[in-house]
Amino acid sequence: MRLLHCHPQVELVALSSRTYGGQDIGSVFSSLKGLNYRFKEMNPEQIASEADVVFVAAPHGVAMQFAPAVVEAGKKLIDLGTDFRFRDVALYEQWYKIQHSCPHLLAEAVYGLPEVHRLEIAKARVIGNPGCYPTSIILALAPLLEARAVADDLIIADSKSGVSGAGRKSDTAYSFCELTGEVHPYSVLNHRHTPEIEQELSLLAGRKIKAVFTPHLVPTVRGIISTVYVRIKPGYTRESIRGLYERRYEGEPFVRLLDEGHYPSTKAVTGSNYCDISVDFDESTSLAIVVAAIDNLGKGASSQAVQCMNIMFGLEETAGIAGLPLFP
Amino acid sequence: MRLLHCHPQVELVALSSRTYGGQDIGSVFSSLKGLNYRFKEMNPEQIASEADVVFVAAPHGVAMQFAPAVVEAGKKLIDLGTDFRFRDVALYEQWYKIQHSCPHLLAEAVYGLPEVHRLEIAKARVIGNPGCYPTSIILALAPLLEARAVADDLIIADSKSGVSGAGRKSDTAYSFCELTGEVHPYSVLNHRHTPEIEQELSLLAGRKIKAVFTPHLVPTVRGIISTVYVRIKPGYTRESIRGLYERRYEGEPFVRLLDEGHYPSTKAVTGSNYCDISVDFDESTSLAIVVAAIDNLGKGASSQAVQCMNIMFGLEETAGIAGLPLFP
Amino acid sequence: MRLLHCHPQVELVALSSRTYGGQDIGSVFSSLKGLNYRFKEMNPEQIASEADVVFVAAPHGVAMQFAPAVVEAGKKLIDLGTDFRFRDVALYEQWYKIQHSCPHLLAEAVYGLPEVHRLEIAKARVIGNPGCYPTSIILALAPLLEARAVADDLIIADSKSGVSGAGRKSDTAYSFCELTGEVHPYSVLNHRHTPEIEQELSLLAGRKIKAVFTPHLVPTVRGIISTVYVRIKPGYTRESIRGLYERRYEGEPFVRLLDEGHYPSTKAVTGSNYCDISVDFDESTSLAIVVAAIDNLGKGASSQAVQCMNIMFGLEETAGIAGLPLFP
Amino acid sequence: MRLLHCHPQVELVALSSRTYGGQDIGSVFSSLKGLNYRFKEMNPEQIASEADVVFVAAPHGVAMQFAPAVVEAGKKLIDLGTDFRFRDVALYEQWYKIQHSCPHLLAEAVYGLPEVHRLEIAKARVIGNPGCYPTSIILALAPLLEARAVADDLIIADSKSGVSGAGRKSDTAYSFCELTGEVHPYSVLNHRHTPEIEQELSLLAGRKIKAVFTPHLVPTVRGIISTVYVRIKPGYTRESIRGLYERRYEGEPFVRLLDEGHYPSTKAVTGSNYCDISVDFDESTSLAIVVAAIDNLGKGASSQAVQCMNIMFGLEETAGIAGLPLFP
Repeated sequence: MRLLHCHPQVELVALSSRTYGGQDIGSVFSSLKGLNYRFKEMNPEQIASEADVVFVAAPHGVAMQFAPAVVEAGKKLIDLGTDFRFRDVALYEQWYKIQHSCPHLLAEAVYGLPEVHRLEIAKARVIGNPGCYPTSIILALAPLLEARAVADDLIIADSKSGVSGAGRKSDTAYSFCELTGEVHPYSVLNHRHTPEIEQELSLLAGRKIKAVFTPHLVPTVRGIISTVYVRIKPGYTRESIRGLYERRYEGEPFVRLLDEGHYPSTKAVTGSNYCDISVDFDESTSLAIVVAAIDNLGKGASSQAVQCMNIMFGLEETAGIAGLPLFP
Repeated sequence: MRLLHCHPQVELVALSSRTYGGQDIGSVFSSLKGLNYRFKEMNPEQIASEADVVFVAAPHGVAMQFAPAVVEAGKKLIDLGTDFRFRDVALYEQWYKIQHSCPHLLAEAVYGLPEVHRLEIAKARVIGNPGCYPTSIILALAPLLEARAVADDLIIADSKSGVSGAGRKSDTAYSFCELTGEVHPYSVLNHRHTPEIEQELSLLAGRKIKAVFTPHLVPTVRGIISTVYVRIKPGYTRESIRGLYERRYEGEPFVRLLDEGHYPSTKAVTGSNYCDISVDFDESTSLAIVVAAIDNLGKGASSQAVQCMNIMFGLEETAGIAGLPLFP
Repeated sequence: MRLLHCHPQVELVALSSRTYGGQDIGSVFSSLKGLNYRFKEMNPEQIASEADVVFVAAPHGVAMQFAPAVVEAGKKLIDLGTDFRFRDVALYEQWYKIQHSCPHLLAEAVYGLPEVHRLEIAKARVIGNPGCYPTSIILALAPLLEARAVADDLIIADSKSGVSGAGRKSDTAYSFCELTGEVHPYSVLNHRHTPEIEQELSLLAGRKIKAVFTPHLVPTVRGIISTVYVRIKPGYTRESIRGLYERRYEGEPFVRLLDEGHYPSTKAVTGSNYCDISVDFDESTSLAIVVAAIDNLGKGASSQAVQCMNIMFGLEETAGIAGLPLFP
Repeated sequence: MRLLHCHPQVELVALSSRTYGGQDIGSVFSSLKGLNYRFKEMNPEQIASEADVVFVAAPHGVAMQFAPAVVEAGKKLIDLGTDFRFRDVALYEQWYKIQHSCPHLLAEAVYGLPEVHRLEIAKARVIGNPGCYPTSIILALAPLLEARAVADDLIIADSKSGVSGAGRKSDTAYSFCELTGEVHPYSVLNHRHTPEIEQELSLLAGRKIKAVFTPHLVPTVRGIISTVYVRIKPGYTRESIRGLYERRYEGEPFVRLLDEGHYPSTKAVTGSNYCDISVDFDESTSLAIVVAAIDNLGKGASSQAVQCMNIMFGLEETAGIAGLPLFP
């Protein structure tokens, strides 16, 4: 809402909500008081008839109910959930425990990570917007995997995420008093982002990659830091590894490769669409340590969705999402 | 639990819970893993038969169901809720919208603020443990009111409380993401602690005192700062006002009067039973500004209840609650 | 920097710094990595020659060194410090303990609060951009004072500010460990914003107003909540008081008067130029309680300075500062 | 101070400080107002003459100046710094860039991790109290290494630490505004705790172990979570791995092995001497993921030092440090 309202080429024509139907936006989000929008409860056909593009930000299982009507009406759909992220429908059904209702649309859907799939995004009708953790981990590893520099078939990704990644929940476990001062791992060895990470890493590598992914909750609202450990093939040096990143991300408007000795930080990307990346290489063990930072609600969700929209409609890719991080 | 488990003269004989009945303490509060306690669901008679003193930490309306059985069994009850704080049953019923089921016990109950009612507490069978806001405001004003130094019948108390004052709630409004960075007033002109504050201030003053009390939520877990504004009668000076506080609180183990130019702070009392107080006087307007800080879960709740228990059973008043604040 | 870089009609021609001279902006503020700016050390003449308007964000005493050269070069100066806020040079010198070096420019300078001094700002050469606390307190009281509705000559303002109000300091007292969980008052009865508040309130009232102003530090980065207590003359009701605010702020793009029962919150304005206001009236005591919230770095500093610039140069008043608050 | 003041068998006879000499404890730490202690500046002989045991909490290089006098006087020294942690003086000198002034005392000093070196601690004259990160990582791995279950010579430890680990610093980089909402790695591949970790892991394993250790700062005051990744030799199962931990830590008063599916959390140990541990095993990759949580100022520093003191003087090992975590 915040991004789309200020986007120079977007007109927000309708806001749908199962929870807040009939309410004014300002009564739900006091930061948006004074804006003249009201939530409606709408069916897919209504939504498809009103807009050129529909964003779905809902639990899995919702977007696939809307997608057929949107596509039939000749409109486009960007799903911030997981319904359109998997190439393998069986994998989706295994991890999310429901049947996919439109596997033909899943088959044509594009994984909405512009730095990896920009050309396909431009032509897509349906986008599966990447998960927040996968965005950080895939961008951290793409240069190494594409260059076939990775030795092992196993990568270790240790991620730290702000609390907003869990969504807006009425749950004691997400209360201010439980989480202030709290750090803990969760979903060890079984987080649902794992297959999504493995799918994209394997595509980049041209072979099956296994990811051991350990997410941790840290007491900040926004931000993800992913620290990735990966064995490199013989023959690489600190400089040649760094060169892979420089060439791969040259010209990318939203990826900032940091100078040596500088490290990504959540605050340096808060409120923006940036992904900051550092790369270190320990020659004695051939281990590369790559760190990536994003705003999980920005590049990890909403502003990445707007970036996809810009690409899909031939707009300036940075339109509406060029805002600088809010600091401090 | 934390305080009682470590108290040198207390044996915890039973833990009752409507919500967690049957569960091990460590599975409810992971900080208490390894302790050998289990929650039961118990009726008042069972509870009364097992213990010498019963603490009730529950919403209003619960303690008054337990009190008669406890008192009849010759045991003592300390209610951390509001059922036994009011001298005027009508006031209770008006503000809390329920009928009081044992007004005879309310009549004999003592308001458990040791610095004001120590002698009565020693003989009490039923204690209404003070609210967190009232504790800070009453201790801030007692020296002025007892000395009849207050000019107006109106005091203004502007309080700032940590989030734990709201209890352990599954409510989006208390989530980490909504409250990090958040400050706001609430219950302006109608907070339920107002009549409790006015009751005790009026008792101290010997006349009807009106309190305008504005609570604010601040983004910390523990701690209350109450800043109180009150007009002083002619004839007082900065020194004489300060002298009232020095004499009043001399020898009190848990009240620390700060040196001039020093101010109470939430961190300086966190985890302890201290109440820190500063007093300033603006001679040009005759306005005194008194600031008090407590840990709302300590002196504002649990450790104050233990202090009352110590007094009721003739133990050392500081037993089990002499721990120093946890800093930083 | 963040605001000016994204402002559609601003070109940043030079960045001066005594501390960071010679450094790239991204090495000082990692959030701004990738921007192509470098800090220089510049003298006033250089600065005046390069730009149409100069913003000074420095301790008091600095802006008055730059102002004469800027004005002589026919350019405009907006001081975010205190050198140009006072109508009475003696008051400035008394509170800030230095001599004012250009009292003639102080005499013509305009207090840059657009909602109060819009027309004068449009014609000003030198702006004294308001302090963060004064902005919130003056906007809270303007409707009452202009309507001559205030009974007393004394108002009580109890303010709570985020830590960024103290500036970027290497001081243990502002460290993360000391301030997490910390709430405390400071500068009781002697904060330097007091004379600035009294000057503007007195101007609005047409008579001398005395302010008892108590600032508190609360553990958030951004945001101020000011809770103001003021006695109202006989004859007013809740509705008529509210009507004063509705009429006064109708059409103001950055003041949001909240519906009854809703209260200002720091998060609802974070990152924006909004000032949110609530007003309550206790008919039994004739006390009005007005609460105002701003982002101390936004409406309380930088975005208000940009708002002044927009007015001074005939631009759309909201240009570059219409961004919505960042939530959560 | 907080722990020793409340310890039943300790009398604090002197407090020395280079920074706060002559000041009352309450004026330095407002949480300790009311205690009757004053900092002195003292030389080693004075200190040695007054106490049975001397705790040194100072930068490296200080304790080794005090140790000879203390030992000669027949007293004991517990250094919370790094001067007495290394078996290899060359390693110390290489990492800390100074010469060690009493290598003979270093040679007899004991690494003060009771769960590993309890018997030697009982007889020691000089203790090198372990670093916070090493404490968590060594306790996480001891059962696997002692059982010779580890396949690789390389372990990966990804740690997250609260800010208090950096000490009490006047540094913008540790300010509230810079660190609220901030997560970042630091000292990648070159943190000074690395050789200390490798020394103890190698001792436990009976062979040279290499550690890739990546510390991260997370925005909490207290607490460390270390997530350790290690390859296990063939033949182990989830159950047999878990069994190693159960047997190893049975009876340890301060190590809590968590049930399967439960994970360590910083809040569950805050203010206590506990180390909470979880262990997972991915049979498909033979990777074990062990997570350990401690309070970096508790088990990671002060309360561990008190635990060593208790052992050295034949006191109850839990005396003075049996306090439960402060929650929430």
